[in-house]
Amino acid sequence: MLIRKAMQKFPSFCGLYKMNSQEELKEGELESFLSAHRPAIDDLLRRRFFYRPSFEIYGGISGLFDYGPPGCALKREVEDLWRQHFILEEDMLELAGTNLTPEVVLEASGHVAKFTDFMVKDEEDDRCWRADKLLVESMKEIINNKDTTEEVKEECRKIKSLADTYKEEQLHEIFTRFGIKCPGSGRPLSYPKPFNLMFGTMIGPSGRQKGFLRPETAQGIFVNFKNLYDYNRNKLPFAVAQIGLGFRNEISPRDGLLRVREFTMAEIEYFVNPSNKDHHKFQNVAAMVIPLFGQEQQELQTPPIYITLEEAVTRKIINNQTLAYFMARTYLFLRACGIKAEGIRFRQHMKDEMAHYSSDCWDAEILLSIGWVEVVGHADRSCYDLTKHAEKSKKNLLAAETYPQPRIVDFIDMKPNKGVMGAAFKAKNQLILAKFQELSELEKASIKHAIEEHGEYELTIGEESFKLTRDMIKPEVTQKSVSQETFYPSVIEPSFGIGRIIYSILEHAFRERTNVKEARSYLYIPPVIAPVKCCVLPLSKNPDFDQFVDQLKETIKRKSLSCEVDDSSTTIGKKYARCDEIGIPFAVTVDFQTVSDHTVTLRETLSMTQVRIPLENVGKVIQKLVFSQMTWENVQCTYPAFATEGSTN
Amino acid sequence: MLIRKAMQKFPSFCGLYKMNSQEELKEGELESFLSAHRPAIDDLLRRRFFYRPSFEIYGGISGLFDYGPPGCALKREVEDLWRQHFILEEDMLELAGTNLTPEVVLEASGHVAKFTDFMVKDEEDDRCWRADKLLVESMKEIINNKDTTEEVKEECRKIKSLADTYKEEQLHEIFTRFGIKCPGSGRPLSYPKPFNLMFGTMIGPSGRQKGFLRPETAQGIFVNFKNLYDYNRNKLPFAVAQIGLGFRNEISPRDGLLRVREFTMAEIEYFVNPSNKDHHKFQNVAAMVIPLFGQEQQELQTPPIYITLEEAVTRKIINNQTLAYFMARTYLFLRACGIKAEGIRFRQHMKDEMAHYSSDCWDAEILLSIGWVEVVGHADRSCYDLTKHAEKSKKNLLAAETYPQPRIVDFIDMKPNKGVMGAAFKAKNQLILAKFQELSELEKASIKHAIEEHGEYELTIGEESFKLTRDMIKPEVTQKSVSQETFYPSVIEPSFGIGRIIYSILEHAFRERTNVKEARSYLYIPPVIAPVKCCVLPLSKNPDFDQFVDQLKETIKRKSLSCEVDDSSTTIGKKYARCDEIGIPFAVTVDFQTVSDHTVTLRETLSMTQVRIPLENVGKVIQKLVFSQMTWENVQCTYPAFATEGSTN
Repeated sequence: MLIRKAMQKFPSFCGLYKMNSQEELKEGELESFLSAHRPAIDDLLRRRFFYRPSFEIYGGISGLFDYGPPGCALKREVEDLWRQHFILEEDMLELAGTNLTPEVVLEASGHVAKFTDFMVKDEEDDRCWRADKLLVESMKEIINNKDTTEEVKEECRKIKSLADTYKEEQLHEIFTRFGIKCPGSGRPLSYPKPFNLMFGTMIGPSGRQKGFLRPETAQGIFVNFKNLYDYNRNKLPFAVAQIGLGFRNEISPRDGLLRVREFTMAEIEYFVNPSNKDHHKFQNVAAMVIPLFGQEQQELQTPPIYITLEEAVTRKIINNQTLAYFMARTYLFLRACGIKAEGIRFRQHMKDEMAHYSSDCWDAEILLSIGWVEVVGHADRSCYDLTKHAEKSKKNLLAAETYPQPRIVDFIDMKPNKGVMGAAFKAKNQLILAKFQELSELEKASIKHAIEEHGEYELTIGEESFKLTRDMIKPEVTQKSVSQETFYPSVIEPSFGIGRIIYSILEHAFRERTNVKEARSYLYIPPVIAPVKCCVLPLSKNPDFDQFVDQLKETIKRKSLSCEVDDSSTTIGKKYARCDEIGIPFAVTVDFQTVSDHTVTLRETLSMTQVRIPLENVGKVIQKLVFSQMTWENVQCTYPAFATEGSTN
Repeated sequence: MLIRKAMQKFPSFCGLYKMNSQEELKEGELESFLSAHRPAIDDLLRRRFFYRPSFEIYGGISGLFDYGPPGCALKREVEDLWRQHFILEEDMLELAGTNLTPEVVLEASGHVAKFTDFMVKDEEDDRCWRADKLLVESMKEIINNKDTTEEVKEECRKIKSLADTYKEEQLHEIFTRFGIKCPGSGRPLSYPKPFNLMFGTMIGPSGRQKGFLRPETAQGIFVNFKNLYDYNRNKLPFAVAQIGLGFRNEISPRDGLLRVREFTMAEIEYFVNPSNKDHHKFQNVAAMVIPLFGQEQQELQTPPIYITLEEAVTRKIINNQTLAYFMARTYLFLRACGIKAEGIRFRQHMKDEMAHYSSDCWDAEILLSIGWVEVVGHADRSCYDLTKHAEKSKKNLLAAETYPQPRIVDFIDMKPNKGVMGAAFKAKNQLILAKFQELSELEKASIKHAIEEHGEYELTIGEESFKLTRDMIKPEVTQKSVSQETFYPSVIEPSFGIGRIIYSILEHAFRERTNVKEARSYLYIPPVIAPVKCCVLPLSKNPDFDQFVDQLKETIKRKSLSCEVDDSSTTIGKKYARCDEIGIPFAVTVDFQTVSDHTVTLRETLSMTQVRIPLENVGKVIQKLVFSQMTWENVQCTYPAFATEGSTN
């Protein structure tokens, strides 16, 4: 985790984050390169055990994957970088909540009622499909059928783009109208039914306490709001982050790591006073330009726009500074992970796509072999979750802000005549007077209006109602001095799908060597997150090399850098190729010269160039390379070049 | 993660790992100190949000806890140190498997049938108890009753010590005999029933694929054995580690983090040829002495013995070098986490306590306020799991080892007379000949014996049997050259309960200041795992201090060290006390002198001593202190002392 110095110097992103820009492809080229190489990528990732279907020896379970050694190491590195980039750099609090969640929490958040996809079934053999996905596939088929008229094609395109907005009746109507049947069997599709995506279980031995595996980590933060706010000494704004698992019982998981049933998320909840969503570090990113694919561009089907974040916020394209600030930080993070600039855009949610409580929402999308894929959401969730939990739990989840100076504010004094009221309502009068204290200014205003216009008002408390008359109350606008305000904080939430980011890193890391005798594929993963930082390769099985191999391994591990030794009897060229395949950025070779002068060769994967370097300097140099305190060009200036790649590769 | 240099220099543990030995208490003193301070410890951990019951606003769920900011940071640091100490230092492969696990896997491992505790119930109100725990509590009560005769007490003590070995009939008999009723209601206890501790769920939309949340991470490694063995280029021994969650639906969770329903584990599976369990690094630890509470000591009720690991292995007290090596590494790890030497022992499982397949098992136990608690298990699981999964999945999970030289081995040749056999068995003859290939040498030896002694042998294949006679086969001992052997690897498994370790760290970190005006409690957590490495404290709210506070924060974060700023208006003494309470090892104070000469004070929590140091050196010095590249004494020699704690505290 240490000395990720370069990355922290704001706004040094231009240097580090673009380090491999010379290699980058235009959007169109990138997409066609990736889709053409998808089988090769899949083969490499599986063969070298980046990840594989879980429980493969039992036939596997769809939507579940295990990360093997290089995948697991990459995941750790990405999480560490994320923690460095967000939690440490932005002074966030970190929380670790449980995955098991009692029903009441997810009732309050709305997940029990609404976290559903529509499912259709083959009633006979019980196969299930997610209705909107099946609809998209069916529309594609019709569009690609050369007998389809242009008019129908146009309709199908529209249906396809709206597939995830339809309700059950609409889905059923479209399936029926186009005669869509169960894939394979050709039997009729069942009527679409909502299927809740949460995994249920029972907590405790009684069999009565229903629970779920959390569908997102966010709720664990919301239910702890008061504890966290206390921890932060009751100051706003503050951010809480959580890296952990989420579970969704997908109806038909597919696309490998992109749609799975168990996944790692990294979520940030930034609690802020709803009346001021400026961000104190916004100026650090105000001049940045990131591709914005806003509602307007999507409607007009025009490309993303490139304007500064300053302009985007001023023109209200992005709702507020905090949202824009996090989008910038996400962009920098993705670039640091090696995602190509041409493969990143921020797509705004359309108005009908957003939750009703949400004021603005932007997804960071990455261009992959299957097209643009959402990997990070940035949503302004307003105060929805906190109010829901306050309501359900009956706990106070408000924040308070003390004004620098007390403010004079208007308020309505009900001016009750306690004598008259007491005579009319007897024992209930206390209840009514207490109710007055709870009324909002808006409610009091309508009572005032009713009394003044109609002479009476029907006040409801629980199931009872009480008629208030002009002789009982004389509501009057007056003023008071207020030193603080209480409110439900708004929440701005950047939410990262770590598995999707890892898969994106791997696709964008995939390259092919064309400048060597035999074309071959390799991964170029930025050294800071590379799963293994370097490999140590004896040129042959000569026992004289052993002590130097051991010494190198020690030197490198002393710097807390992971390293692998390949002492098999294969050729050095093949050893390089093996290391290249799992994205090891540096290789050190022990050869006959090492035995006589204690120097070794150090090779960089990307350029395949090598230098000759004293063995004792290896650890320090690799450490500096990994943490961007030194470039490969610096190394080449300091140490003599060794051979040419062609000759040793 | 970087530069944990000192810790890696084997066997430098004598220096670093005993750093606070002057503070340590004898076992008896430690236990009474901890149990006397338990309420204060609980209060501190809750108040400062190290952890709290999950979903507290909804009343909480027993056995589930959330880690707040300092607890979560401590957990990360412990996991990082673990990864450094085990995975990096020991060249382990790391895997990340899923928590959702299909039923078939846990059927194979035996968890579906046997992962149970006995439960008793109050049939009327459905309250449940774990039978063995209730039995222990009941026995304690009887023992503590002054009317109980010495004879009965003696019996109760015996029952108490055997509580977790009883079957349902025995439990029922004892409950009945002693007249034990439901706590609270006094109603009769139900007959004990096994309750499976796994959380069940349904995977996928069909509602037919039963799954569980994994009860341990180990099975995810076993089912991937072949992939991992391939990744390791088919070489043994090798170790695979996994840090992840485990879930157990405890009947009656209690003791805070010590018995919970969702917890983090760190497990290592070391795959080794069963015929040679030596460890190549055993010599590094052979001279270490760790407290061994073996079967003999437990039987004789004598204290643990202190002998070298060399002797323990030679005398077969510990079954093999690999087991002993990992016990030593665990000891070093726990010491690095600040666990006091007097509070660690290794308790061997008694013969009836071990799984039948296990050849030896040692728990690292830590002395806490509630007594000795198991935190790390070290088990030789033999080849149990791999054979079970091979059987169930019908996949080959064998390893092979090629001998340096081919070996000449005895074997029995069945010498079948195919003519005679063909005539007798017709179409079945091929089946019988194939069966001969699969027979073990032991089986062939008994056939040989039977044929020679009795002239015939009844061979069973599936449900059929075939009578082999002297004219059909002439089994004969002969020799062949063998170049490799295939076998199921044995597995040696160190398994760490991270939550239990964290709780132990916190109890052992708890101290009281008696050398200040007002006695107060604090935590001393070793800097390398301290949740927050340092705090920056302006002496007052004077705005002149702001720029220096910002500058310090930057300097410290540049070194990837976490820091907190306390710019509240409280006194500096109170600020120190707040930092001390969450175990922040170093504090930097900005005062009026800072404004004129750009120096600050640096204070160490443990000794409460301070030095005056140039602001620009702070980051570097704290980094070196955290990673044990410098001691506080070094700092005191280099920089002038500042005031005395008494005066500023």
